[in-house]
Amino acid sequence: MKRIKLTLSYDGTEYNGWQIQTKPFGVKTIQGTLEDRLRRLTGEEIKVVAAGRTDAGVHALGQVVHFDTGSSIPVDRYPMALEGLLPQDIVPLKAELVDDTFHARYSAKGKTYQYTMDQGVSPHVFWRRFAYHYPFPLNLDAMKEAAKLLIGTHDFTSFCASGSSVKDFTRTITSCLLWQEGQFLHFQVSGNGFLYNMVRIMGGTLLEVGRGKIGPRQITDIIKAKSRNAAGPTLPPQGLCLMKVDY
Amino acid sequence: MKRIKLTLSYDGTEYNGWQIQTKPFGVKTIQGTLEDRLRRLTGEEIKVVAAGRTDAGVHALGQVVHFDTGSSIPVDRYPMALEGLLPQDIVPLKAELVDDTFHARYSAKGKTYQYTMDQGVSPHVFWRRFAYHYPFPLNLDAMKEAAKLLIGTHDFTSFCASGSSVKDFTRTITSCLLWQEGQFLHFQVSGNGFLYNMVRIMGGTLLEVGRGKIGPRQITDIIKAKSRNAAGPTLPPQGLCLMKVDY
Repeated sequence: MKRIKLTLSYDGTEYNGWQIQTKPFGVKTIQGTLEDRLRRLTGEEIKVVAAGRTDAGVHALGQVVHFDTGSSIPVDRYPMALEGLLPQDIVPLKAELVDDTFHARYSAKGKTYQYTMDQGVSPHVFWRRFAYHYPFPLNLDAMKEAAKLLIGTHDFTSFCASGSSVKDFTRTITSCLLWQEGQFLHFQVSGNGFLYNMVRIMGGTLLEVGRGKIGPRQITDIIKAKSRNAAGPTLPPQGLCLMKVDY
Repeated sequence: MKRIKLTLSYDGTEYNGWQIQTKPFGVKTIQGTLEDRLRRLTGEEIKVVAAGRTDAGVHALGQVVHFDTGSSIPVDRYPMALEGLLPQDIVPLKAELVDDTFHARYSAKGKTYQYTMDQGVSPHVFWRRFAYHYPFPLNLDAMKEAAKLLIGTHDFTSFCASGSSVKDFTRTITSCLLWQEGQFLHFQVSGNGFLYNMVRIMGGTLLEVGRGKIGPRQITDIIKAKSRNAAGPTLPPQGLCLMKVDY
């Protein structure tokens, strides 16, 4: 048996998220599709573990998974072989041999997500699957000021979807950037871990800052409140993308 | 009756090109879809005329059409009203009142097309509908040298799909640019008019130059040959996009 680390990208539009669901029957997931193709390729029942279990409609340009296999297929052949078997909206990028202490999720030291808003009067037709169309004016300077206050080690309860089963809401955000690129506004955040819906709630809160509904310095109070109600809305999934996982 | 100039964008992936086809029955086209929604909106049988009749799988970010209507709907309402009726892969951008001498096709003074190649080892999953994946090394300097030789007024018979019914193959190319942007290579060409498949054959010829199969200076001989066989292959449609029409 050997353990393989696989980096992959996907357009999440047509999928019900990363994780295999048993009910309802027949729901299409990234994990299910990938495991099916690995079964066809190796003849084995393979279970893959992902660094981040992306939600329905969320994309990845640098998702990382690991799996164990007894197959003799050379490791560097996996991307090409899988690309031929997978649908066009899942593209494997790189396969590496790792030792069996490597775990895609638990070994991850940090992750980077990006959220893209389309600020064009009309949505850019190439980006309709990958950006949230928000054609209203935003105060980018205020948003940048607010984004800086998210950096650091905080209890992020206010930025976690209610009903989450985690016990410890403390996470460290190492970088939080906003920039304009043509008609698009990108929000990129890196940290050692993310709570459920955390990036989409951060994005929704920064949007409220950009609209002038929340003052940029209120971010500190929102963090202190430790209440989901204190933060802004959860942005829709299609603007979100898992960019990178660091080990 | 008034004449309306409508600028629109579309993802051509799911369409059998711009032009309505009577056979086979039920083929989906951009023109057919747009005319159907204009019928629903105005209650009239409206015929639209496009600046450029894009082929199956080809996209547009700045297609221009005109149509005549007796409807009292204010002109500036058309983009929003149509956006609500059209599928997400056709996005109207702008509507303007024009006088009845305006013709989307015959009044056009110039057009700009862009062809995008994805040079990544693996295709970028967000661009799989909008770029031609070509992961092999290309000599960009040679391609740029060749592109310059396409500029000017020439008989472009060598760059026209055989079987075309046009009589005059002379066109003026005003600009022909190539540039790299991350893993993508863009080829943008402007001119007063384009023959059938002209941009895709120009792209295919430049690709042969980039691979070293054709020397950059041979472009002049290829033009002189006035034979489709002298030029390179026709690149696939998905990399092509009609960017802009000038009047």
